[in-house]
Amino acid sequence: MDRAVLPPTEVLDAPTDAADDRWDDDHFHDECGLFGIYGSSEASNLTYLGLHALQHRGQESAGIAAVQDGALILHRELGLVRDIFTEPVIRKLVGDRAIGHVRYSTAGETHVKNAQPMAVDYQLGSLAVAHNGNLTNYEELRERLEGEGSIFSSTTDSEVLVHLIAHSRQRTHVDRVADALRQVQGAFSLLFLTGENVIAVRDPYGLRPLSIGKLGDAWVFASEPPPFDLIGASYVRDVEPGEMVVVSNGPSGPTLESFYPFGESEKRTCIFEYVYFARPDSKLGGISVYDARKRLGAALAREAPVEADVVVPVPDSGVAAGLGYAREANLPFELGLIRSHYVGRTFIEPQSSIRHFGVRLKLNPVREVLEGKRVVIVDDSLVRGTTSRKIVKMIRDAGASEVHLRISAPPTRWPCFYGIDTPSRAELIASNHSVDEIARYITCDSLGYLSVQGLHAAVGGAGYCDACFSGDYPIAFTKPGHQRRQLALIGV
Amino acid sequence: MDRAVLPPTEVLDAPTDAADDRWDDDHFHDECGLFGIYGSSEASNLTYLGLHALQHRGQESAGIAAVQDGALILHRELGLVRDIFTEPVIRKLVGDRAIGHVRYSTAGETHVKNAQPMAVDYQLGSLAVAHNGNLTNYEELRERLEGEGSIFSSTTDSEVLVHLIAHSRQRTHVDRVADALRQVQGAFSLLFLTGENVIAVRDPYGLRPLSIGKLGDAWVFASEPPPFDLIGASYVRDVEPGEMVVVSNGPSGPTLESFYPFGESEKRTCIFEYVYFARPDSKLGGISVYDARKRLGAALAREAPVEADVVVPVPDSGVAAGLGYAREANLPFELGLIRSHYVGRTFIEPQSSIRHFGVRLKLNPVREVLEGKRVVIVDDSLVRGTTSRKIVKMIRDAGASEVHLRISAPPTRWPCFYGIDTPSRAELIASNHSVDEIARYITCDSLGYLSVQGLHAAVGGAGYCDACFSGDYPIAFTKPGHQRRQLALIGV
Amino acid sequence: MDRAVLPPTEVLDAPTDAADDRWDDDHFHDECGLFGIYGSSEASNLTYLGLHALQHRGQESAGIAAVQDGALILHRELGLVRDIFTEPVIRKLVGDRAIGHVRYSTAGETHVKNAQPMAVDYQLGSLAVAHNGNLTNYEELRERLEGEGSIFSSTTDSEVLVHLIAHSRQRTHVDRVADALRQVQGAFSLLFLTGENVIAVRDPYGLRPLSIGKLGDAWVFASEPPPFDLIGASYVRDVEPGEMVVVSNGPSGPTLESFYPFGESEKRTCIFEYVYFARPDSKLGGISVYDARKRLGAALAREAPVEADVVVPVPDSGVAAGLGYAREANLPFELGLIRSHYVGRTFIEPQSSIRHFGVRLKLNPVREVLEGKRVVIVDDSLVRGTTSRKIVKMIRDAGASEVHLRISAPPTRWPCFYGIDTPSRAELIASNHSVDEIARYITCDSLGYLSVQGLHAAVGGAGYCDACFSGDYPIAFTKPGHQRRQLALIGV
Amino acid sequence: MDRAVLPPTEVLDAPTDAADDRWDDDHFHDECGLFGIYGSSEASNLTYLGLHALQHRGQESAGIAAVQDGALILHRELGLVRDIFTEPVIRKLVGDRAIGHVRYSTAGETHVKNAQPMAVDYQLGSLAVAHNGNLTNYEELRERLEGEGSIFSSTTDSEVLVHLIAHSRQRTHVDRVADALRQVQGAFSLLFLTGENVIAVRDPYGLRPLSIGKLGDAWVFASEPPPFDLIGASYVRDVEPGEMVVVSNGPSGPTLESFYPFGESEKRTCIFEYVYFARPDSKLGGISVYDARKRLGAALAREAPVEADVVVPVPDSGVAAGLGYAREANLPFELGLIRSHYVGRTFIEPQSSIRHFGVRLKLNPVREVLEGKRVVIVDDSLVRGTTSRKIVKMIRDAGASEVHLRISAPPTRWPCFYGIDTPSRAELIASNHSVDEIARYITCDSLGYLSVQGLHAAVGGAGYCDACFSGDYPIAFTKPGHQRRQLALIGV
Repeated sequence: MDRAVLPPTEVLDAPTDAADDRWDDDHFHDECGLFGIYGSSEASNLTYLGLHALQHRGQESAGIAAVQDGALILHRELGLVRDIFTEPVIRKLVGDRAIGHVRYSTAGETHVKNAQPMAVDYQLGSLAVAHNGNLTNYEELRERLEGEGSIFSSTTDSEVLVHLIAHSRQRTHVDRVADALRQVQGAFSLLFLTGENVIAVRDPYGLRPLSIGKLGDAWVFASEPPPFDLIGASYVRDVEPGEMVVVSNGPSGPTLESFYPFGESEKRTCIFEYVYFARPDSKLGGISVYDARKRLGAALAREAPVEADVVVPVPDSGVAAGLGYAREANLPFELGLIRSHYVGRTFIEPQSSIRHFGVRLKLNPVREVLEGKRVVIVDDSLVRGTTSRKIVKMIRDAGASEVHLRISAPPTRWPCFYGIDTPSRAELIASNHSVDEIARYITCDSLGYLSVQGLHAAVGGAGYCDACFSGDYPIAFTKPGHQRRQLALIGV
Repeated sequence: MDRAVLPPTEVLDAPTDAADDRWDDDHFHDECGLFGIYGSSEASNLTYLGLHALQHRGQESAGIAAVQDGALILHRELGLVRDIFTEPVIRKLVGDRAIGHVRYSTAGETHVKNAQPMAVDYQLGSLAVAHNGNLTNYEELRERLEGEGSIFSSTTDSEVLVHLIAHSRQRTHVDRVADALRQVQGAFSLLFLTGENVIAVRDPYGLRPLSIGKLGDAWVFASEPPPFDLIGASYVRDVEPGEMVVVSNGPSGPTLESFYPFGESEKRTCIFEYVYFARPDSKLGGISVYDARKRLGAALAREAPVEADVVVPVPDSGVAAGLGYAREANLPFELGLIRSHYVGRTFIEPQSSIRHFGVRLKLNPVREVLEGKRVVIVDDSLVRGTTSRKIVKMIRDAGASEVHLRISAPPTRWPCFYGIDTPSRAELIASNHSVDEIARYITCDSLGYLSVQGLHAAVGGAGYCDACFSGDYPIAFTKPGHQRRQLALIGV
Repeated sequence: MDRAVLPPTEVLDAPTDAADDRWDDDHFHDECGLFGIYGSSEASNLTYLGLHALQHRGQESAGIAAVQDGALILHRELGLVRDIFTEPVIRKLVGDRAIGHVRYSTAGETHVKNAQPMAVDYQLGSLAVAHNGNLTNYEELRERLEGEGSIFSSTTDSEVLVHLIAHSRQRTHVDRVADALRQVQGAFSLLFLTGENVIAVRDPYGLRPLSIGKLGDAWVFASEPPPFDLIGASYVRDVEPGEMVVVSNGPSGPTLESFYPFGESEKRTCIFEYVYFARPDSKLGGISVYDARKRLGAALAREAPVEADVVVPVPDSGVAAGLGYAREANLPFELGLIRSHYVGRTFIEPQSSIRHFGVRLKLNPVREVLEGKRVVIVDDSLVRGTTSRKIVKMIRDAGASEVHLRISAPPTRWPCFYGIDTPSRAELIASNHSVDEIARYITCDSLGYLSVQGLHAAVGGAGYCDACFSGDYPIAFTKPGHQRRQLALIGV
Repeated sequence: MDRAVLPPTEVLDAPTDAADDRWDDDHFHDECGLFGIYGSSEASNLTYLGLHALQHRGQESAGIAAVQDGALILHRELGLVRDIFTEPVIRKLVGDRAIGHVRYSTAGETHVKNAQPMAVDYQLGSLAVAHNGNLTNYEELRERLEGEGSIFSSTTDSEVLVHLIAHSRQRTHVDRVADALRQVQGAFSLLFLTGENVIAVRDPYGLRPLSIGKLGDAWVFASEPPPFDLIGASYVRDVEPGEMVVVSNGPSGPTLESFYPFGESEKRTCIFEYVYFARPDSKLGGISVYDARKRLGAALAREAPVEADVVVPVPDSGVAAGLGYAREANLPFELGLIRSHYVGRTFIEPQSSIRHFGVRLKLNPVREVLEGKRVVIVDDSLVRGTTSRKIVKMIRDAGASEVHLRISAPPTRWPCFYGIDTPSRAELIASNHSVDEIARYITCDSLGYLSVQGLHAAVGGAGYCDACFSGDYPIAFTKPGHQRRQLALIGV
């Protein structure tokens, strides 16, 4: 790394302004959540509920596609699940099978054209697809397809997939999907809906999660298991890395078949789901997320101990790690930061406010808990450092005598190319600054991270992708050689 | 024709109910209006105004695509031009060239997915297209394209065109457009927008209209000339049947070139534009529409005279013909039917109303003009007969002693396959009933039409398509052999 | 009159800019339309339809109040009748009696707070009122009421009325209404709705219209008769000047009683309703509006003849007068100006346009009718002159060799204080300029008005208010001594 | 108490269905939050932010009134603060003083007519008022006022207040407010806005909270202090019970004066603010809410101990008490229930769900924390019992071996008449059932409440209203003798 050692505050202040336009600027954003069901007379209503339980995985847009008698109906919109799917809309999404999608955009602009599921008519009939992940050879595929006369109306990976399926010479939807997926590289969990099937696939590394559930005769799919709880389904198992699961109509109801179209595969599931993305009440790969986070906190307490009076988590995502830290360190645990759950907007920043006061709309300190105390703040990640800096200032203004920041993960040094919206390396503070430099920027009295080994040990199990911490990418990523031209659609 | 002669009222009552859901059930609906401009710094604003002046050609949806520096921006929505294009939207549609479209759907359901212009990215960059007309070999082309791996997300002719362009092996947008158009059959006036050009094309028969105007250095296109008046442009000439006009950047501003890619062509412009579709202040093929309508009325007075006291037109489209009739017949002309220009909706039909009272919301008689009089009603067309029947009843209820209906066109016996929304033959009352039978159904004292020769003579000029009256179709139409499956999109 | 004779164009240009913000700047705007019904199970649906037929009397806001079992329900909104009253809203407005109102605001700003009907609870129960007209002692009454402790949340006359009713010591709604109305001066047609009655009142001069109809057992009221035609009711008679009509529940259905609470009264109905406001298919005071307009045109042809080739009316309101003029002058009548019925908005005026091009969005000339002709333009009024000036320019640009403007009314010299929205004297071009000066400003070749005597003779009958032409005001008007403070409500 | 001892399940099931329509059916709802500011150039923007920080006190409607040069501008709407106050709206609310209000309706129907602030014009000018509380002599006052000729367009206490002010014979706004308030009884915290002043008043018992802050020269008021943190203001003190604080323009900026218009007063502040309503980061009457809740939990652990393995709070409001309980009982504290912060709606309840599955959309158990454990659930209140019953079932379904419910307050036996939305006695399960009966209905293994003495001791300080627990009402409440007729407004 060829960066010059510059005085940290100047260097570090630079990205602050732009970064602050986004609320959660110190957190990652998973791109998508998937839900699918085959074999229920209330398929679209259950998909609506399932998406609601996955809303944390994407708040920008949502969509549902349903099929009845081969006729595919699609509704997608920008906004939250509960605002998009009113009763009249749900009633129009008829049929006993449906797939749904929630999305958080990685690009700056948000357009309905990129909302999912995507649906088209092609030679074999109607087809809808919902995608979570990122195809690393998207650019090459798109260039090849355009050379063959394909037209594009979005910039989503899904549209490339659909073209590959339409160009396949195979005879059935299922064979064409397998054929197409053998040509793509990258991270993907996918749900396809056709007149005959729901197809669920996970890439050979299993980078993005996908679970199977059962509700009576119906088969259900979701990015994480909590939607199963909500609709009363039972969790069956995860879709395996490299597995393609096909649900079709059998003689006695919906039948599930399993294929492995990619040959070999090597489990490398995303370890960051345990640290931050997944719901705490989720279980991924057989491991409880809540338990894993408590173990992360406990390991952090052992690796980065500090003399202190109280442990305060950054809510909501840091709470379980904070509990683990406090218990291991034998320190009192207090909710010294209160989170507002009415997401606010600022149109005109008040003159009286601290610069970039955004974080105040979300978090407020409880002075009585902090005053005169040596405080350990436990958070799950530190991306740009701007929010952490404001939190530290807020805690200190509330009277804390010392502020020690502890992150229940290793430093985030590398961008994710597998479907998680992380900033570029230039914006990742840990990619070009030492822990001491970061601590000085954050203005905390001490800063501690978890080690990569500590992370793996605390989560438990094996076969994880930890590229964002280690730079060890399981799949090569070809950076686009040219800027994509891009159709812009206003409103539609 | 193998229909049995049934008692007319029963037969004829049948389609009434369904037909009545639509307001203008006794009138035709042109599908589309086009507007384009190349070389003005206020391209999208002028396109907005141009579409406003073409609103009568389509009230279901509207769209504008604009290009700046090769980046294409598109906005389209269901609704009226003035509601869709707010100032913020217009401000986003930057660039010195734009094309726009207003649309009336022929299908029962209306979806934004079928709104135009359509825009895509393909091998040569971004491309938008706006289409007025109907491709008669759409089904064959779509089947062929699907067989070659094309995907479809709408059911518009435009999407077939775009695939043909993307599949062409030619090197430039312009050559590819020509290549694609040589493969299609049917009626089309088209505007294309690319990073480099605006392209205007009219099919070899010139079935649908398209005019060229000039505004300073800018070239302007519109389905009819009145938009030129509105924006201060001057009318130059019509695009010729079979002509492709390309505007590109020349050394001293926008340059227009003309091509004839289709080889031979034979002028067969739509005669019904003069009878009903076009604005009365339009001039098509060098003939004033207002003047033509007055001549139609005069010819009608000669062909179908009647002893009467007063001539009353059905506003607004029948007014000019009514004037012509009255003057030729030397009868007083009175506006005995008042049209409300606040288009109404009925949610719950009042119990007190005459059955299907819809027409009342639009037209109301002036009793003083009609009472005790022998009234000649002049209208421009009679499609199903349901509205005319209500109008006749309304006139009689207002005290008329006799009601004579005169139509300033021949009986509409054949559906239009070239871009005009007409009912099927079964619903066209004149296709399977004699004039006497229709008169009995309409309950008028006499009914008179214009002859086909009278029509041609009154409009003047030559080379018209009069298929809706004569059944003489210039282009064969292949009925689809199978019902198209169709993707349904709710809202989006 | 103390104006200096200034070069007319300078003087006259001054008001142009501000005036041009409004579309119809050369026309008056009646403030309101009323509709009421007592005794129909579909009262609110019929009121919706009735208001639709009165939409021309006010497009800014609309409201309906209905009563069932003493419970009053109100809905009012800014916008057009058909957009406000959706089926769910109509279904909520239960009960067998209802009153409704459409409104055009006189003030610059439009607020729902001033929408009508107004509804309140007071000592005797719930009460709604809809008002057409203007109370000339509003300021005095409001000051007195405020001195007695009344609070105001609107600036409508209706709120003063409601306070007077609430302060009355009478025992019944009906007596209190009479008591309150004896204290007010000015022009009013009013509908009241209580738990027991619908009450219809017209001021002692009968300045604003109000008609009675019958639909089965139900009694119906409307500002003009055409709504009766729409809903299938029959016209019974006008409410008389100074009459108060009370509908209540009699032993055999709704019973109508008539009172004259104001003692003497003197008919002075608004003559301008015949000239411009009322629908042409209306009959007011026993006189057909359409016929009256034709007679106005004929009288104008006699009073202000001119050598010409063609008579062209300004649509829609000038058409009947144009017919009358042409017939009397024995000149051809042509619709040489086409009116667009899609009301447009301009966000950004195109640079290429004539200055203030607004009128173009509404009217377009038919060149073939005008070219090389000496044209008589017939319009019904000329207020500021700005629109007329643009129309004359448009006609001349279309090739007319001469343009003669004829107004089917006398010069509008005085503002209306009785419920019609006219500009102040300073803005009325005829109030401070001679006909010659106006003609020069308008740039027409000649300008002709009808005389006041000619107006009265053409309309026929007697007992009219012609104050806007003559300055002869039947009721004194107290100008407010101070600027009213005014609560502003955004949105609500 | 004269209730018969019925089999509890039957009795108790009865209210379940109706109650379940509301999400938070086991929690109280405070009616309102207030914010005001005098002396800042960004008054409306700061009021917007202040209301955002008070959003938990009312989510149904919000409004802001601002004054500039005596002109009062008001905007209020149904919805959330952030959706109502867009930048254009805030920009229109000009002036250096403003008051705002958030509201949760007690009545079943929600109407903008009842949204606050209320604003009127009266003899002394414009006046706006925002009210938190409930006037216990509202009905008497309204009847008296109606008898004197007052009209009403809402059913809010504020309208009665405004009438009393308008009827007062005092000379100034301030004296009239004092005069009016001496006539009312009940609980009120009030903010008034006039052309000259902001006035803040608290009833003689100080039942509802109200705090004073300072931001530079400006004086700020808020129901609770956290909005001061958000805008950078400092907390000064609470408004005292019975105090009227008037801010006006002094020679060197905004000046605050204090009055005690009610003579004697006796502090009886609402103890339930500490238990549930107030934000945990609030400080009321000098006592930290977070600390008080921890003490309530600790006291509960002493009063209602149980052999158990883990303490799980019901988030968010039960968390602090849960921490206190766990620490006092020396038991592990775990977040075994995860709360979704995307508030959901169910349109169609899935057939597969447990009956009334509503609570599932909000809470989901973490199985790993609960499985095989003896669980103590800590919640802050139990109103009808329906939600608690579902939570207990959910915990047990997740594998808990025992479920012990602990409420950090005494049984809620009496409705609040002072501005908090509680069900009637019939619906309060504790008002007519023993703890054992409730436990059986809830299906928990044990149920424990805090004693009233324990509550007072844990909160600390003195002078509280605890009527909802004890029935000891400081102010008599006159139940209305008749059902109020009530104007219904749809939409507006």
